[in-house]
Amino acid sequence: MTTAELISQINQKKSFLCIGLDPDLDKLPTHLLASENPIFEFNKAIIDATHHLCVAYKPNIAFYEVYGLKGWQCLEKTINYLNENYPEIYTIADAKRGDIGNTSNMYARAFLEDLGFDSVTVAPYMGKDSVEPFLAIKDKHTIMLALTSNEGAFDFQTQKVDNKELYKLVLETSKTWENSQNLMYVVGATKAEYFAEIRKIVPEAFLLVPGVGAQGGNLQDVCKYGLTENIGLLVNSSRGIIYASKNEDFANAAALQAKELQTEMEAILK
Amino acid sequence: MTTAELISQINQKKSFLCIGLDPDLDKLPTHLLASENPIFEFNKAIIDATHHLCVAYKPNIAFYEVYGLKGWQCLEKTINYLNENYPEIYTIADAKRGDIGNTSNMYARAFLEDLGFDSVTVAPYMGKDSVEPFLAIKDKHTIMLALTSNEGAFDFQTQKVDNKELYKLVLETSKTWENSQNLMYVVGATKAEYFAEIRKIVPEAFLLVPGVGAQGGNLQDVCKYGLTENIGLLVNSSRGIIYASKNEDFANAAALQAKELQTEMEAILK
Repeated sequence: MTTAELISQINQKKSFLCIGLDPDLDKLPTHLLASENPIFEFNKAIIDATHHLCVAYKPNIAFYEVYGLKGWQCLEKTINYLNENYPEIYTIADAKRGDIGNTSNMYARAFLEDLGFDSVTVAPYMGKDSVEPFLAIKDKHTIMLALTSNEGAFDFQTQKVDNKELYKLVLETSKTWENSQNLMYVVGATKAEYFAEIRKIVPEAFLLVPGVGAQGGNLQDVCKYGLTENIGLLVNSSRGIIYASKNEDFANAAALQAKELQTEMEAILK
Repeated sequence: MTTAELISQINQKKSFLCIGLDPDLDKLPTHLLASENPIFEFNKAIIDATHHLCVAYKPNIAFYEVYGLKGWQCLEKTINYLNENYPEIYTIADAKRGDIGNTSNMYARAFLEDLGFDSVTVAPYMGKDSVEPFLAIKDKHTIMLALTSNEGAFDFQTQKVDNKELYKLVLETSKTWENSQNLMYVVGATKAEYFAEIRKIVPEAFLLVPGVGAQGGNLQDVCKYGLTENIGLLVNSSRGIIYASKNEDFANAAALQAKELQTEMEAILK
């Protein structure tokens, strides 16, 4: 999917909500556990109930790999279900990969070509040749970690490199890479006060913003400095939406939570 | 496996060789492609021919994920084959994972518990709470990227943070994390001149050293500064060994390459 198509979908739905699909068997509604494929049934119900309120879904790959073969099968079924039934939806493989060139190339093929995701998250530590193989794939995005929402972000990301925080060096350096127009960045909502600084370096790029809700970030704060003329934000909520209820009404409960965020977004977009 | 058991295996085999299992269908011996499971057949033949010459195998997870379900199945079959037939062998899931705590916890379970690897590689960018869930698992190791073998290592890893290179800050900081005794570090052989500096910070820790052979690193240089009283090195070779021949003799050819490295290591250990 191109950036223009994503923006058009956002304007149409008046939403820049991304829903994280992090299915955890311990948290799934109990009545689903008896079905043959509880994780896929869960994802399918959540997607069917919320697809008109969000523009993107973000399966967190760890939550599938932990179930081995069966988990990988659920991941395939989920992305296929999305691509077949809701082709307008933007999809993000939250994988945080990154390795030497020929290995990154394999990950890029796996997520962007074979599975058919629109984008994949990557880690910057190994530099240019670990990210460029992802960027090389046409009409796909690579979403690189810049400033994350967790406490550990302060261990290295905000440390100063020649008087400039590491995450700023990461942002600046990445702009010089080949096909850098395909880059988006992960910036945590719990670090809202940093958005103004980040927008000085990447005034146009889309930012994927986790940490609204369960992790404590605030939507208004993020939008105040993060929003651009072309929106430029995908705000993710996972647990706050998908685990809104553990009962048979879980999908409706998820839709209610999503609707609340979408309404807030619609007001902001005005 | 404990560090002591690994050291004992190294002393017994007079080898600190790790063989990377990066199976690429485009590079596999042609006669294997007709078999039902060419990747597993390839791995099995390589393992059977080389297990007495090395102490560890390191499947690179990207090379399995790129084949989807079938690839994941091959990964499971490979680690099961190793654990059942060669329980003395140390196994490394080269996955370079790292995410917020609850996600890292899922990856840790996937690779160290469910699949049963002895260790997994992780990326440090997200800091303490992204790595500690891996460190929490008993008698397993977490192998964190410090200074990698690729060109992109110079983008961020060698940049100075308060007059100290980032990779040094990563090494120093990680020593303060809970269960840091379970840490090993990735240090590329192409950066041999840095080993002396690294040993000042982590005098005892095991270093996993990729980049000998195909990537141009030199074993003598690495050992000169990297070797400790308890060896402290696992030197990896992937392509130089497993793709030594594309013919029916591929496993023997791999063993010859492995034997050459093992012999060199035996001389160094004296």
